[in-house]
Amino acid sequence: MLSKNISFRINMFSKEIDELQLSEEYNLLGGRSLIAKILLDEVKPTCNALGPNNKLIFAPGLLGGTIAPCSGRLSIGGKSPLTGGIKESNVGGIAATKLSKLNIKALIIEDKPQEDKWYIIHISTKGVEILEEAEIIGADNYFVSEYLLKKYGNKVAIISIGSAGEKQYRSSAISVTDMEGLPTRHAARGGLGALMGSKRIKAIVIDDTGAKNTLIADSSAYKEISKKWITELVATKKVLTTKGTANLVTPMNELGCLPTHNFREGNFASADAIDAESLQKTIKERNGKQGIPCHPGCVIRCGKTYNDAKGNYITSGMEYETIVLMGSNCGIDDLDTIAKMNRICDEIGIDTMEIGVTIGVIMESGMIAFGDKEGAINILEEIKKGTVFGKLAAQGAEITGKALGVSRIPTVKSQGISGYDPRGLKGTGVTYITSPQGADHTAGNALPGRVGYRHETEEVLDVQKPEGQVALSRDLQIMTAVCDLTGLCFFVGTTKSNMEIIAQLLNAKFGINVNIDNVVKLGQDCIHYEKEFNSMAGFNEAHDQLPEFFYLEKLPPKEVEFDISEKEIRKTLKF
Amino acid sequence: MLSKNISFRINMFSKEIDELQLSEEYNLLGGRSLIAKILLDEVKPTCNALGPNNKLIFAPGLLGGTIAPCSGRLSIGGKSPLTGGIKESNVGGIAATKLSKLNIKALIIEDKPQEDKWYIIHISTKGVEILEEAEIIGADNYFVSEYLLKKYGNKVAIISIGSAGEKQYRSSAISVTDMEGLPTRHAARGGLGALMGSKRIKAIVIDDTGAKNTLIADSSAYKEISKKWITELVATKKVLTTKGTANLVTPMNELGCLPTHNFREGNFASADAIDAESLQKTIKERNGKQGIPCHPGCVIRCGKTYNDAKGNYITSGMEYETIVLMGSNCGIDDLDTIAKMNRICDEIGIDTMEIGVTIGVIMESGMIAFGDKEGAINILEEIKKGTVFGKLAAQGAEITGKALGVSRIPTVKSQGISGYDPRGLKGTGVTYITSPQGADHTAGNALPGRVGYRHETEEVLDVQKPEGQVALSRDLQIMTAVCDLTGLCFFVGTTKSNMEIIAQLLNAKFGINVNIDNVVKLGQDCIHYEKEFNSMAGFNEAHDQLPEFFYLEKLPPKEVEFDISEKEIRKTLKF
Repeated sequence: MLSKNISFRINMFSKEIDELQLSEEYNLLGGRSLIAKILLDEVKPTCNALGPNNKLIFAPGLLGGTIAPCSGRLSIGGKSPLTGGIKESNVGGIAATKLSKLNIKALIIEDKPQEDKWYIIHISTKGVEILEEAEIIGADNYFVSEYLLKKYGNKVAIISIGSAGEKQYRSSAISVTDMEGLPTRHAARGGLGALMGSKRIKAIVIDDTGAKNTLIADSSAYKEISKKWITELVATKKVLTTKGTANLVTPMNELGCLPTHNFREGNFASADAIDAESLQKTIKERNGKQGIPCHPGCVIRCGKTYNDAKGNYITSGMEYETIVLMGSNCGIDDLDTIAKMNRICDEIGIDTMEIGVTIGVIMESGMIAFGDKEGAINILEEIKKGTVFGKLAAQGAEITGKALGVSRIPTVKSQGISGYDPRGLKGTGVTYITSPQGADHTAGNALPGRVGYRHETEEVLDVQKPEGQVALSRDLQIMTAVCDLTGLCFFVGTTKSNMEIIAQLLNAKFGINVNIDNVVKLGQDCIHYEKEFNSMAGFNEAHDQLPEFFYLEKLPPKEVEFDISEKEIRKTLKF
Repeated sequence: MLSKNISFRINMFSKEIDELQLSEEYNLLGGRSLIAKILLDEVKPTCNALGPNNKLIFAPGLLGGTIAPCSGRLSIGGKSPLTGGIKESNVGGIAATKLSKLNIKALIIEDKPQEDKWYIIHISTKGVEILEEAEIIGADNYFVSEYLLKKYGNKVAIISIGSAGEKQYRSSAISVTDMEGLPTRHAARGGLGALMGSKRIKAIVIDDTGAKNTLIADSSAYKEISKKWITELVATKKVLTTKGTANLVTPMNELGCLPTHNFREGNFASADAIDAESLQKTIKERNGKQGIPCHPGCVIRCGKTYNDAKGNYITSGMEYETIVLMGSNCGIDDLDTIAKMNRICDEIGIDTMEIGVTIGVIMESGMIAFGDKEGAINILEEIKKGTVFGKLAAQGAEITGKALGVSRIPTVKSQGISGYDPRGLKGTGVTYITSPQGADHTAGNALPGRVGYRHETEEVLDVQKPEGQVALSRDLQIMTAVCDLTGLCFFVGTTKSNMEIIAQLLNAKFGINVNIDNVVKLGQDCIHYEKEFNSMAGFNEAHDQLPEFFYLEKLPPKEVEFDISEKEIRKTLKF
């Protein structure tokens, strides 16, 4: 098998850097599955996530750096400071492609410095260096990327943390620069920014100047498969190109599963103020853009820029989950407010989802009212300033809710539930409950129309009926893991036919001969590693449940319940 | 078997009260073991501890209300709002004896009111009543007991919560009046005050007027055994009578296991300012008292009253763990400061231990300095006022430490470690790690000189060597459970000879024929129930460990390590 296999161990205590080849058993592991296996093999699951024994791993996928469409996701992982379990968060931007071109399979960052200094890591064809850095400590992500691009050349990729990561807040993200050099892409979930902060790494600079193209065993076959797939994706994913992920606001609101007022309702009266049409209109009026690819080779192009009323750039975020969790979930019906909040999150590097859920919980406590726009922005300002209350809020919904005495805290495994109420979108609810990643729609989002790869779930289910949801979530979780381990954006579609295409691409790239069953097995193995790690980290079946209020309260206006039995749930990841 | 067996189910949603006989399998269950079995049988372990599905249970022990010495402990339990696992906290005071005289084996409080009202529960020979109460809501424990004694007669026992319990703070305690009618005895650990607050019960009034003495099968044998035991205890426990639990300050300091500066050191330079001699001297000078029994029939009498410089009563607390965790652990070398802090805890009803550990963690964060007396008192004032920071601190060390970004948080299963550094008192360390109750010295405290009941641990161990500590902790945990299920204060001594005496007392009381092995089995069963509940609540072996810093740092000045292997630890509760 043709395998690129250079990895680096970077020890932040000793400052030793080892270039190594991972053993053969790691050959068909990449991105998320590579991270899971390394963590399982090397990290004691009960370690303090912010202590010296945790590791921070960066890994592009098996198809990274190639012309395969949307193959430039970067997986980042470690033991999560937020959940205490395993965590992989993947992100677009230009870093993964450059790592792949440099032939790098993984960066494994170990231990932590004892001295009171901060560092950046510089990666190029000459190897890896740890460099002291003092100028940009405390700085926000925009400043950091501008500064480093000036210093190291405007073609480099920057991976960085803002002040939130430096302060090891459990909601902090790791940011990656996009094709414009802006730090707009975030590996947001699970507090990995805090893990990077604990290693005292402010940024990683990746310079692929002089790097050769990724090796491909049968490049003409690879090209052919890729081209055909690109054509198909361009034709079928138009809604994401023109409207972005915000296209979901209206259907989710109509379905009655739009998180509203801290998951009290599934329908937001002012949804039209924050829907894709409003967003599109505002973007257009203010000379913002839509249809931006987040990494080279992305043909779906769901990115956008959102400007203020004067036409000045604010953020490239405004994803569905951000809009909904900071919007309807907080009773906020104003895109400019959400954009301001999103911008602060970009700057200081925190997860818009976790903080959206946290603000909802703070509103639930009565400290500020639902719909209080200034109050919501002020919470983010407090996080930025590092006040005691800001520190608290920055630890996420679970800790904040407990501190404020809130009983309705929408988290699973201490991670805030994403932008879909599990009572109204039951398959996604099963994913929240069972995914080793904690509540996370990106682990297997059972949107209307989704089908599995097995016979039993090859029919379209009613998303609000319990039947078949466990099998559907299982299939989607496995296929999503396949995307995450190959470095593909899961927006290509977690479908059986795509699993076939992935098998073909792997064969062409590595000169191997795998079929769809083998590919599915790669996804299954990934989830097995993750579950095994979690079990040793202290999770058992009791952690596979929604917060109690989801079982006690029906979700208006459709009055739907989460009516999938525990017995059924426990079958989800048994394979 | 002669068995008293009246229990009450009190439903706070429907206000229904059921008088019932628990089935025969509960006959030899009492106090802690009865609570464990009822929780295991009736409460879903994954429920929200502060939600409607948790239950709050009060149960005197099997020997409660008799002339057996020190048999008046009241066990209180439920799923812990602090740890998320099972919790029993037992307490002196006069409530247990009155419940036993009323022939009551258990009060099982279920569900919670939906209306915005508060209640008291009144218990007498006429039965149980739920009464609305508005006058004393928000009031402190001293006011509550004074008010209720005036209203219901000065002979009644009062069980109450302060404002902390009302606000459902996770460090809140349940208080019980002593023989003077003061609310000085606290079931402090595990946040059971919050559980009582969640049921909206401010207080329970127990009036045993007209109650008959507890039934005893062979009362002359019972008397004889008790009298002999009383003579022995009076002779051997003098140090507790004259010095109280504070007698441990000097030996623990000399041993090098006195928690100091948030468990950074095991020896406090100013220990003599807070030791038993200083305490005795201050109490004497100010006309305080020592040698007070906390409940009728207590012959050890470790209680005391501590007055201010003008001779006015401040508190009856000032236990070793309070003095140490609020004192040396916070770098505070002043008994008056500790007494003030203790008094606020009495008033608002919070665990002095959990808050002592929490203040140490706050000092560790740098918010206030170690040794800052005013700062420490101010934290308690903030809790009293209910500021955001006060709310946070009142959730205990784990949540506070996480919110403030502290990496050295001395907790096990989210409960603050008690007044003995586990590196310097290894058997107690094993208990902290393995007890289903979370870090809790009262689950099996391996002080110097302790021996087990089995051959292998019948020799006195070096408390700082790893050998034999697992077996010793196991034996002590089992024998402590026996005390807790019989209602005996464990200060009688968790010894083999006492297990023999307990067997004789059970035989005389119930007309049965059990031996020491049967008694030990009762303790083992109790721990099994608790472990089973915890497993279903989400605990596995990964939760049986100290925080990472205890393994990474040696404890000065003796530079001792916690060097008992995980493999050994895992054998502790296997029986």
